[in-house]
Amino acid sequence: MVKKTIGFNWGAAAVSTAIWKGVPLRYILQLAGVKNDDNYEKTRYVCFGGTDKLPNGYYGTSITLKWAMDEEKDVMLAYEINGKRLTPDHGYPIRMIIPGIIGGRMVKWLNKISVTNKESDSWYHFHDNRVLPPNVDAERANKENWWYIPNYIIYDLNVNSAIAAPAHDEVIPFSSFSSDSEYTLRGYAYSGGGRKIIRVEITLDDGKTWLLSDLFDLEERNGRTWCWTFWSLKIPTHSFVRSSEIRVRAWDCSQNTQPENLTWNLMGMMNNCHYRVKIHVITYGKDVVLRFEHPTQAGNNPGGWMVRQHELEQKQSAPANTPANASKSESSSKDPKYTMEQVKQHNNEKDCWIIIDKKVYDCTKFIPIHPGGTTAILINAGTDCSEEFNAIHSDKAKKRLATFYIGDLDDSKRPKL
Amino acid sequence: MVKKTIGFNWGAAAVSTAIWKGVPLRYILQLAGVKNDDNYEKTRYVCFGGTDKLPNGYYGTSITLKWAMDEEKDVMLAYEINGKRLTPDHGYPIRMIIPGIIGGRMVKWLNKISVTNKESDSWYHFHDNRVLPPNVDAERANKENWWYIPNYIIYDLNVNSAIAAPAHDEVIPFSSFSSDSEYTLRGYAYSGGGRKIIRVEITLDDGKTWLLSDLFDLEERNGRTWCWTFWSLKIPTHSFVRSSEIRVRAWDCSQNTQPENLTWNLMGMMNNCHYRVKIHVITYGKDVVLRFEHPTQAGNNPGGWMVRQHELEQKQSAPANTPANASKSESSSKDPKYTMEQVKQHNNEKDCWIIIDKKVYDCTKFIPIHPGGTTAILINAGTDCSEEFNAIHSDKAKKRLATFYIGDLDDSKRPKL
Repeated sequence: MVKKTIGFNWGAAAVSTAIWKGVPLRYILQLAGVKNDDNYEKTRYVCFGGTDKLPNGYYGTSITLKWAMDEEKDVMLAYEINGKRLTPDHGYPIRMIIPGIIGGRMVKWLNKISVTNKESDSWYHFHDNRVLPPNVDAERANKENWWYIPNYIIYDLNVNSAIAAPAHDEVIPFSSFSSDSEYTLRGYAYSGGGRKIIRVEITLDDGKTWLLSDLFDLEERNGRTWCWTFWSLKIPTHSFVRSSEIRVRAWDCSQNTQPENLTWNLMGMMNNCHYRVKIHVITYGKDVVLRFEHPTQAGNNPGGWMVRQHELEQKQSAPANTPANASKSESSSKDPKYTMEQVKQHNNEKDCWIIIDKKVYDCTKFIPIHPGGTTAILINAGTDCSEEFNAIHSDKAKKRLATFYIGDLDDSKRPKL
Repeated sequence: MVKKTIGFNWGAAAVSTAIWKGVPLRYILQLAGVKNDDNYEKTRYVCFGGTDKLPNGYYGTSITLKWAMDEEKDVMLAYEINGKRLTPDHGYPIRMIIPGIIGGRMVKWLNKISVTNKESDSWYHFHDNRVLPPNVDAERANKENWWYIPNYIIYDLNVNSAIAAPAHDEVIPFSSFSSDSEYTLRGYAYSGGGRKIIRVEITLDDGKTWLLSDLFDLEERNGRTWCWTFWSLKIPTHSFVRSSEIRVRAWDCSQNTQPENLTWNLMGMMNNCHYRVKIHVITYGKDVVLRFEHPTQAGNNPGGWMVRQHELEQKQSAPANTPANASKSESSSKDPKYTMEQVKQHNNEKDCWIIIDKKVYDCTKFIPIHPGGTTAILINAGTDCSEEFNAIHSDKAKKRLATFYIGDLDDSKRPKL
């Protein structure tokens, strides 16, 4: 059973590769008279502050001065992504880019850089982007000050990999099978700190044998690899027939690989266990097909075997004295009620509903004036985005949300899985 | 089932920490007029050659020039260990020390340094210190030239950990148990590339829960940790009663951890799966005791659950038509025969027998003149050291060995496990 974390739903999506344009941070620091330290006794830091005011103050974080000044680390003040000026979502007008490490240090909407003798004092520097040991929950972390233990901060990303093809819900009809039909598995792999991916392997028999995939090496820069590596593996389609799962694991140039199983941590960050796509044999109209199921889907998209497993476990652990239809009979609110299915229809720029904490909001009119940009709302249109909303919005924003309230979520009609 | 590799028996012992004294390699290179490259297009290398002539030529290897010149990598020409001049075993008169990477690059008995445009051309640079994918065996590696694929070379060590206490064969009598008796688990953890160990955890319930150990941090140097980290964890002694295994795993500052299970590779190198000590409840005279069993023991010492498992598996896979006592009845040699038990008695400086390929040698007289030093023989006195001997000795050395032959190993009386 996997406990709920207090972090975002990342899926396999918390890594990206783009072409960034900007100014090396070290040039700016040098212009300001900052010199690299020869004094290794005392660590100095470069602190970054954003203009985004969140429930616990402004977002901010820091890296060591040594890191910032290292010409091989490629730390950059970026103003362009893939040949275009940054959009608000990507941190317009200027943001940090620090290759190889966790995104949380790459402050968006940057408005302040300072060189200090200690780490950033932003609440978010300490309370986000940490991996705490698995037996530390929120209560214990706060009570015993685990957030401030230096070992648990995240900088470098670890080695990771994911499967992109077959996609979630992709099907292969048995009627298309022939002795020479092939399928090309595809995906990406990545490691932090500029470490190169040297090997990506697939198993179709629960780890008994591993098949070596082809790698598409991206260019190295000063002996470092900042980008994800694509992998692919062509296999006979019939290899799937006796297999219940496709698993991938990567190895980096430090000979590290991924653990087989997930280790829970409070923020739900940096889990890099083997990525598993389940293979189902199902009937689909008159066909018999193989259907592929990923563990979760990106963002708030429904589905995935981890989600299904989690819901099953929750159902099993529900108190025995709660009647199955309790939510229906106990409903007393007189506000309009909308089902998930109804909300899902309002999923575009001209008609955009969202659900937050079981309340439904029509925020169509708010889209063009959203401080976080248009896309930030639109990717959530027609979905329940409670977690995302609550994690990054201030109390002021939460009050403003109330203006757009139109009714409650009727979850008594949710399909039983 | 774990297949035999062509490498050494390392156990958990292929890592060490010592205080080295020497001259930074970059000083020597600078004196010789070598400058660091600004041209990142072309990698330059520093090649090291040893005076040890092996079956396939002199031992040698290389690292990049960039690495050699980096003042934070602490690459050193060492002449002292722990305050004393190097012994022959440790590479007298001078050897390489390259912190954080595999020992195979730290050439002993150093006699040549050259700066070149390509890697070392020593046979051993390519045919040793590689991790090949698990489906590549010796025949395929040689036939398809896997030794020369750049991705599979080892430099950085990966994250690893081991249990030292309880030791192999340590016992705790149940008669010593009381409600307040405690046991302190101890061991070491390590990661390559100067990456710090941030977390070491123990499980007594097969990974369902993990207990956080205490770490004894060693000093960092330029933000890098070159030494192993000791860990300890005090637990109530009765925690062992319902547990069949103690497992340890470490995490480093790049958020990498160890895989649960071993992945076979041809050289048997760099396996860093969870270290498991089995717990047996056995009678021991009149006592009932807990007895601890490590996976293997260092060097040629017998025992360990992996060894036992391996022998069992071999027995099960033996051809059915081989009579159980075949070795006895087929014996035809007229040379004297010695049992393992007899050989074991000759285990010291004044009386030193060894077994190589089922032949017994009395090499007492050779000890003081062994080119590899006294200790190299003495640690093998009274044991079967076929693998170690064959791996590092030249044909000339093998011929010389014949001088000391005294008889054959009688393995018909080996105890059945």
